[in-house]
Amino acid sequence: MHTCFHPELREGLIPLPEDEAIHVARVLRMREGEPLRLVDGQGSEAVGTLASVSKRSATVRVDEIFRESARPAGLILVVAPTKHTDRFEWLLEKATELGVEEILPVWTERSERRVDKHERWNKVLVAATKQCERRWKPLLHPACGLASAFDEHPHLQERPGAVAHCMTSVEGTPNRVSWREWQSSEETAWLAIGPEGDFSESEVQMLVACGAVPVHLGDLRLRTETAGMAAVAQFT
Amino acid sequence: MHTCFHPELREGLIPLPEDEAIHVARVLRMREGEPLRLVDGQGSEAVGTLASVSKRSATVRVDEIFRESARPAGLILVVAPTKHTDRFEWLLEKATELGVEEILPVWTERSERRVDKHERWNKVLVAATKQCERRWKPLLHPACGLASAFDEHPHLQERPGAVAHCMTSVEGTPNRVSWREWQSSEETAWLAIGPEGDFSESEVQMLVACGAVPVHLGDLRLRTETAGMAAVAQFT
Repeated sequence: MHTCFHPELREGLIPLPEDEAIHVARVLRMREGEPLRLVDGQGSEAVGTLASVSKRSATVRVDEIFRESARPAGLILVVAPTKHTDRFEWLLEKATELGVEEILPVWTERSERRVDKHERWNKVLVAATKQCERRWKPLLHPACGLASAFDEHPHLQERPGAVAHCMTSVEGTPNRVSWREWQSSEETAWLAIGPEGDFSESEVQMLVACGAVPVHLGDLRLRTETAGMAAVAQFT
Repeated sequence: MHTCFHPELREGLIPLPEDEAIHVARVLRMREGEPLRLVDGQGSEAVGTLASVSKRSATVRVDEIFRESARPAGLILVVAPTKHTDRFEWLLEKATELGVEEILPVWTERSERRVDKHERWNKVLVAATKQCERRWKPLLHPACGLASAFDEHPHLQERPGAVAHCMTSVEGTPNRVSWREWQSSEETAWLAIGPEGDFSESEVQMLVACGAVPVHLGDLRLRTETAGMAAVAQFT
């Protein structure tokens, strides 16, 4: 069954957002009476029936909405956007499919091209949320500097955190442990992943001072977006 | 240190393949005397010194080669290429970074666009092998029909196998178990992943008859390439 995104899901006769209506009418060529799944990305889901459809608009009759009141807690990715946005958008899509809870883009010392494409990135999350049939769209925060991430998002401090880096050792910080092993005893966590050139030593020291456990993701050198996806896939 | 691919690694003074030479000369602007890492994707690795460099050619002095005689056994992905090759190429890149052993592309009942882009796909594997510093390039087999995969590749029968599918039940086959749990007790395995429209019931029945255990990869509906990537990331 086709899934539509509807940010204001309610019972009764509701119009679809224009882009969803066009997709239903022109691409899928759906007819009145056909069933549709609706999600709002905020925990609500409904199966409705197409009540009317024209070229650019459509209405759906919704009889009953299933609401999940709290976002399931899981993994928050604190991640430096890659230089090329397509790699970061892949990560957003894959992390959504694999169940990430929140994504906080951060600018780091070695970040290049610091452009927060929030709206565009959010569209990727909406599309992936529909595709994989999640009820909750991952929360995407506006990008911020790594140094201010913990002031701006104090909820990070309420759960255990880790920092993945590629250095054999960083002065004044513990040796890295395996992410896979470390996360296996955590129900919720945040994980910081650096840019193409990795975090700097002082960034790792700062994150460790904020409570992060240094981790590695195995023997091979992973690209930023691969590290992010693998970490989400491995988080249980 | 920069890594070059060299299919015929030996000791002494060796010329770089042309594309690698151009990259070293024009993109990286490396000079004589600078160190280079060389891999052949067949278990051999060396650190050499750039002995001469011009616009389109370069030679490297190699003093010692480290050879690993056997390919480490792990996971073989038996996977239906996606309709859009960029998604499949992305899976090839990520699976390489995450340590996949072999990739066998298979055509299934619901496969669209059956074009084996073997050479192009192999280039993706070479690039990813260099980037992540693997010693062994994953083995990429020519694409074949799912039905003949086991005749053409009898080594599949020598290790446990699984089939990931999205159906609640398939007549005559056991219920799906969690891939993550199942793989945790296997040192080596193969995993079959279907195309966008999933395997057909009879394909699942055939794979189960060949010894595959039906598995799922969690609650969310994953795209083919996400399923492949997640399965490799989760394989220990």
